[in-house]
Amino acid sequence: MQNFTFHNPTRIVFGEQQIAGLAALIPDGARVLLTYGGGSIKKNGVYDQVVAALDGKVWFEFAGIEPNPSFDTLLQARDLLKSEQLDFILAVGGGSVIDGSKFIAAAACYQGDAWDLLCGKAKVNAAIPLGCVLTLPATGSESNGNSVVTRYSTQEKMAFSSPLVYPQFAILDPTTTFSLPPRQVANGVVDAFVHVMEQYLTYPANAPVQDRFAEGLLQTLIEQGPQALERPEDYAVRANVMWAATMALNGLIGVGVPQDWATHMIGHEITALHGLDHAQTLAIVLPALMQQQRRQKRDKLLQYGKRVWQLVHQDEERLIDEAISHTRAFFEQMGVPTRLADYGIDASAIDTMVERLVQHKMVKLGEHGDITPEVSRVILQSAL
Amino acid sequence: MQNFTFHNPTRIVFGEQQIAGLAALIPDGARVLLTYGGGSIKKNGVYDQVVAALDGKVWFEFAGIEPNPSFDTLLQARDLLKSEQLDFILAVGGGSVIDGSKFIAAAACYQGDAWDLLCGKAKVNAAIPLGCVLTLPATGSESNGNSVVTRYSTQEKMAFSSPLVYPQFAILDPTTTFSLPPRQVANGVVDAFVHVMEQYLTYPANAPVQDRFAEGLLQTLIEQGPQALERPEDYAVRANVMWAATMALNGLIGVGVPQDWATHMIGHEITALHGLDHAQTLAIVLPALMQQQRRQKRDKLLQYGKRVWQLVHQDEERLIDEAISHTRAFFEQMGVPTRLADYGIDASAIDTMVERLVQHKMVKLGEHGDITPEVSRVILQSAL
Repeated sequence: MQNFTFHNPTRIVFGEQQIAGLAALIPDGARVLLTYGGGSIKKNGVYDQVVAALDGKVWFEFAGIEPNPSFDTLLQARDLLKSEQLDFILAVGGGSVIDGSKFIAAAACYQGDAWDLLCGKAKVNAAIPLGCVLTLPATGSESNGNSVVTRYSTQEKMAFSSPLVYPQFAILDPTTTFSLPPRQVANGVVDAFVHVMEQYLTYPANAPVQDRFAEGLLQTLIEQGPQALERPEDYAVRANVMWAATMALNGLIGVGVPQDWATHMIGHEITALHGLDHAQTLAIVLPALMQQQRRQKRDKLLQYGKRVWQLVHQDEERLIDEAISHTRAFFEQMGVPTRLADYGIDASAIDTMVERLVQHKMVKLGEHGDITPEVSRVILQSAL
Repeated sequence: MQNFTFHNPTRIVFGEQQIAGLAALIPDGARVLLTYGGGSIKKNGVYDQVVAALDGKVWFEFAGIEPNPSFDTLLQARDLLKSEQLDFILAVGGGSVIDGSKFIAAAACYQGDAWDLLCGKAKVNAAIPLGCVLTLPATGSESNGNSVVTRYSTQEKMAFSSPLVYPQFAILDPTTTFSLPPRQVANGVVDAFVHVMEQYLTYPANAPVQDRFAEGLLQTLIEQGPQALERPEDYAVRANVMWAATMALNGLIGVGVPQDWATHMIGHEITALHGLDHAQTLAIVLPALMQQQRRQKRDKLLQYGKRVWQLVHQDEERLIDEAISHTRAFFEQMGVPTRLADYGIDASAIDTMVERLVQHKMVKLGEHGDITPEVSRVILQSAL
């Protein structure tokens, strides 16, 4: 096990009817900016629950944070926050709303061009405190310090991380997910699954607790994900998917072990250039990457096949083949196609994706830093 | 899954040579009380590392906190803390030193008789902040809000819990455990194992993440525990035991699920009356309790036998028998005997133990509250 520091200060408040207790979680006297997305929370009743729970608080709202939240939109929210002298952000929605709100929180405390925080030119030194009500289990953003923001004018999707933007609290009420469209449910399960894989499928580091926690999350997502599509109002299933997605990226399973994240970095370029959902890009890239990196990931691929999929072949190459094909089949079963062609993207698009990886300095990806632009090209070609 | 709140604010700093960074974790200007136990940290070099890391800080020390820390001893430490106007506690040691330091922290802020905090007469409303350097993986005290204290004058072992006594940080350097006596290594592994079982072996609550995390910890302890005895200076093994013990009782695996804790409550009376090590009492009580409660715990006993011990019998009763006997054998393999007689305790001692359970209101134990004093008596009799 490698040395590590782990500190996750987010208070998780999990279960039915927990939104009603929202006011007690927000600091007394706070001036609140309520942020949300395209308005689904107005249709499913979550907005009304939140507004009722905010009774007596001073609050303003900013609606319209997009999936893959837009840099320019978020700057408008920042301007509102500053002009109204607001000092707490309440993000209500999925990973995009929470990621976007983290960026608002950091940008509000930064004097220069806010893009600096995303392109790596400046670090976050301060942020407005925030809390969240999660309505889409997927990204883990509700209890981590990560944020991904897209600048549409330049087709760039960039990330930042800071301990200063961990939500102070996260309310996770599984009933808020009952009305999600199947595509978002599926995307969330695939996203959480790939988060686990990025922290697990590397090389053995003699970290059995982390390995078994990761395998437990993968098995849970494989078992519960399809049920969430079949029985949208099954509380227990929704609760298990929600908790698994939070645990998948709250930092815990990644402590002291090597990590990959190449699938995400390659996927971000696909989204930025072609507008695919984040999880769609992961479902495309991961199986291709597993195949391409099967030599480097051999030991963990065997462990994954045996423990997660209960594969028992004597022939280890065949076992790895099946581990990869089961992974692909799981994404397809969730309704997320796993080929670029399924989204109308052909070989002519790959050059630009690889150029963008170079431009964003994503030239030594993977746990060994051996996923060069040329390897990324091979991965993308095999994902056609 | 049941509704829950989870908030663990402890910063974990894990790995070799992390003690050197101690000063940065303690608030600037703090006046520190360094607490420790019987002096093993002076023999193994940990004391010197801590003293070197405290260079430039104002600090006092209080030595001599016992295993099963004594109420009267801790009050002396509280008096030193108050007379020297100290405002931060640094606990260096195992669960007893950390538990004791939590009590010092709370007692220093309480005006009445400090026993009130243990007997349930008063709640903790304030506490001196504390941090810790863990040298004995076992209790999980390094990242939870629990404390157990013994008043020897009345042979009473009592517990309190408060979010105010979570350590702010916990330094976990596996090399500090290399020199532990085998008995303490074994006790630590058994203690951590039973912590997991108390949160796992109840009834199914449709919480597959929690179940699989618990099973992963049990498997890790079964696999790594004996290796820690065989190869005391194997860093990887020590690291895995240390991390598993922390995860076993930091609150995570117990969220949203029923819990038992009867084994601990019955065990506490054995320690209070007969001076056995805490883990010895758990190794005695748990197998007897599993047998006595096999009907109520049937589904989880089957799951435990299959997933943790890979048992495959068609006959479910036999599978449960073997799950229990494997558990007992594991404790014995670790060198911890599992019968009262092994410690020179006979049937004549049971009446007093049961009386004490009644006196301490431990009359409806277990996840169903059905472990009455008479059931506890049967458990103790079958553990002779």
